[in-house]
Amino acid sequence: MTTPLRLGIAGLGTVGIGVVKIVQRHADLLALRAGRPVTIAAVSAHSRTKNRSADVSAYAWEDDAVALAARDDVDVVVELVGGDNGPAKALVEAALRNGKDVVTANKALLAHHGHALATLAERNGRALRFEAAVAGGIPVIKAMIEGMAGNQIRRVMGVMNGTCNYILTRMESAGLPYETVFDEAKQLGYLEADPNLDVGGIDAGHKLSILSAIAFGTKVDFDAVVLQGIGAISIDDIRLARDMGYSIKLLGVTQMTGRGLEQRMTPCLVPGTHPLGQLDGGTNMVVIEGDSVGQIVLRGAGAGEGPTASAVMADVMDIARGLSFPTFGQPVGSLTEAPAAAVSTGASWYLRMVLLDKPGALAKIATILGNVGVSIDRMRQYSHDNAHAPVLIVTHKASSDDIALAMEHFNQSGVVVGAPMALRIEDV
Amino acid sequence: MTTPLRLGIAGLGTVGIGVVKIVQRHADLLALRAGRPVTIAAVSAHSRTKNRSADVSAYAWEDDAVALAARDDVDVVVELVGGDNGPAKALVEAALRNGKDVVTANKALLAHHGHALATLAERNGRALRFEAAVAGGIPVIKAMIEGMAGNQIRRVMGVMNGTCNYILTRMESAGLPYETVFDEAKQLGYLEADPNLDVGGIDAGHKLSILSAIAFGTKVDFDAVVLQGIGAISIDDIRLARDMGYSIKLLGVTQMTGRGLEQRMTPCLVPGTHPLGQLDGGTNMVVIEGDSVGQIVLRGAGAGEGPTASAVMADVMDIARGLSFPTFGQPVGSLTEAPAAAVSTGASWYLRMVLLDKPGALAKIATILGNVGVSIDRMRQYSHDNAHAPVLIVTHKASSDDIALAMEHFNQSGVVVGAPMALRIEDV
Repeated sequence: MTTPLRLGIAGLGTVGIGVVKIVQRHADLLALRAGRPVTIAAVSAHSRTKNRSADVSAYAWEDDAVALAARDDVDVVVELVGGDNGPAKALVEAALRNGKDVVTANKALLAHHGHALATLAERNGRALRFEAAVAGGIPVIKAMIEGMAGNQIRRVMGVMNGTCNYILTRMESAGLPYETVFDEAKQLGYLEADPNLDVGGIDAGHKLSILSAIAFGTKVDFDAVVLQGIGAISIDDIRLARDMGYSIKLLGVTQMTGRGLEQRMTPCLVPGTHPLGQLDGGTNMVVIEGDSVGQIVLRGAGAGEGPTASAVMADVMDIARGLSFPTFGQPVGSLTEAPAAAVSTGASWYLRMVLLDKPGALAKIATILGNVGVSIDRMRQYSHDNAHAPVLIVTHKASSDDIALAMEHFNQSGVVVGAPMALRIEDV
Repeated sequence: MTTPLRLGIAGLGTVGIGVVKIVQRHADLLALRAGRPVTIAAVSAHSRTKNRSADVSAYAWEDDAVALAARDDVDVVVELVGGDNGPAKALVEAALRNGKDVVTANKALLAHHGHALATLAERNGRALRFEAAVAGGIPVIKAMIEGMAGNQIRRVMGVMNGTCNYILTRMESAGLPYETVFDEAKQLGYLEADPNLDVGGIDAGHKLSILSAIAFGTKVDFDAVVLQGIGAISIDDIRLARDMGYSIKLLGVTQMTGRGLEQRMTPCLVPGTHPLGQLDGGTNMVVIEGDSVGQIVLRGAGAGEGPTASAVMADVMDIARGLSFPTFGQPVGSLTEAPAAAVSTGASWYLRMVLLDKPGALAKIATILGNVGVSIDRMRQYSHDNAHAPVLIVTHKASSDDIALAMEHFNQSGVVVGAPMALRIEDV
């Protein structure tokens, strides 16, 4: 047997304990597959005495996670601390500087500091791997960097926040309003401490920005991701969309256009016949389009102990096998600074609003759309028994700018009650 | 720039030309991603003068494919000749013996000689890679060997022959009988020269036997795959299945059971709500279940120039990047000889037959099932205007042996007209 690969695991929460369990349960299988044993040398977490579902007493203990980076008996630092700054960042930097490989599940860290960390990894000749940072157990990073290495990637789309997808599909299946399902999700422990990370699309946006870098050979640019959360989606929107054969998903889309890199994480309508439209509950899905391979769809659990630990172990096993390539699939010096596309690719839009029930209201709306150059594919006014008339409009292809302008005019029109809603109908 | 990786391509059909096009079109991108240029040194095909959609005149030409293995200017032999014997086998063996890495799309070769070739590769310290051999452009080999390296794999299922899936979904959507759609598929060029490779399940069975070896660390054992083609599926079966919420798919399933390794490639009923049941047309899908990651679903084009060439290039790029691990993911000496499970895991079954319309016929059928210990979940006799009564039965969980015995008794019962049909309802 050759030299073991020795891990130092920082963070013994759900994922960390999942990794410990795999290393313990499958020691023989891992050694066989990697050609060398994979062992745990040291661990670190907030509390040493906490009751955990795996026994970590055989491993050296560090109160300070960053100390793992200095240990001679650690070859790979597994960073599962989380957060885009503080100990996670300090640990990853120290580990790379000390010549250790790093495996992390930290999407926020990569979204904010991915380029700097990749530079550091390359300078020190070490691996910085992050399969678990995007779409949990789905091997999407590997599929893109390796499995599609012969393709120019055209577009990547994905449902990458299980909590949002749970909320949207539960609203649809149970006919419950957003607020009720949000509270349910909170009770079930599905939401981050700051729920806006989930429902505001930030967590999923982090993931999308990482996929963009790989897909297009650009520097990670999370700030350029157009973010829109799901908080304004009503049960009416979900029903109206379904009646037209669509599902509403918090959908990430990244594509390189003639106007720059377009990165969006927004609620969109997708056809119910496409795998994206059929995705229920907390499951994740990533759709990758390559110029040779066409459309590849990957589906699996996006979170949880087993799936996330599985992704961490995929990276660990690659390192154990000696596989090595640049962090984002090409040398960090070749990653370009792509301008963010100011306007998104044209699309049909779903517009929903409530009109005052007075003569000329609908005409006013139609005129506003005409004035901004948006043409109407379908329009439907629903019957109502009070002074307010719900109206649904599906537009022909229009730019996000024109739709934004129309929304502004709707708000000033004096005939729209409350906030109008505009959702992109993604051409999947 | 470091040393280029030089390919010798044997076979310039659809896939070979697809590979040439990618190498030509994406030379810069490939060099950036691999850290070295990927070039073509030499090619070989039947006819040198044939009109091809890519220019191969710049490459050295070999009339005899096996000669590529002897060329000093070839680092990797790309075998796209096909066939489980003859020049394909001779070429791969010669290449490995001469210290060259091999990339192949040849499922028949691997199904029949995979273990011997892996042994040869290991002995010579070379890579034998075959992403394109299973499910075309879908990076399923990579997902299993690398992406799920931390998992014990529980079960692999897949729709891996696009032609069969095209025929079955076209029968369903157009309401056409098997024979008509088979002829259509032939006209469209979807069928192999020997159509039984497709509709008999042999091609898909080859693929399944390869996935089994990876999933369970066993020697490739194609002869142990239980094969059943789609030729006996009638439009009635498809309609009856759909009425119960199922689709009929030529489904491969491999799993390790207490009774040995169970490998089946047979038409099965799968729920219309599962991604497998929603898979239309020539698309492929592989579902992999790991003990940590749960169920991963991969979907994409299973054939065609671009997708298959994309998979070939994934292997080429791995080799260019220096990635290396054993052929089936663990040393060839550790692959075990698993006994084939004589009886498949219990399942519900769909039974369809036509009965003589005479008193006691249905009772006779029910008695036969009772006698072999198969209990009935649902039974339905359809109205009819002649002397024959169509009958549909869904059983409770039963073994394949008990069902086979019941079918034998049905045939001898004197009340069943024509051949009764039994299809497994797979618990996906």
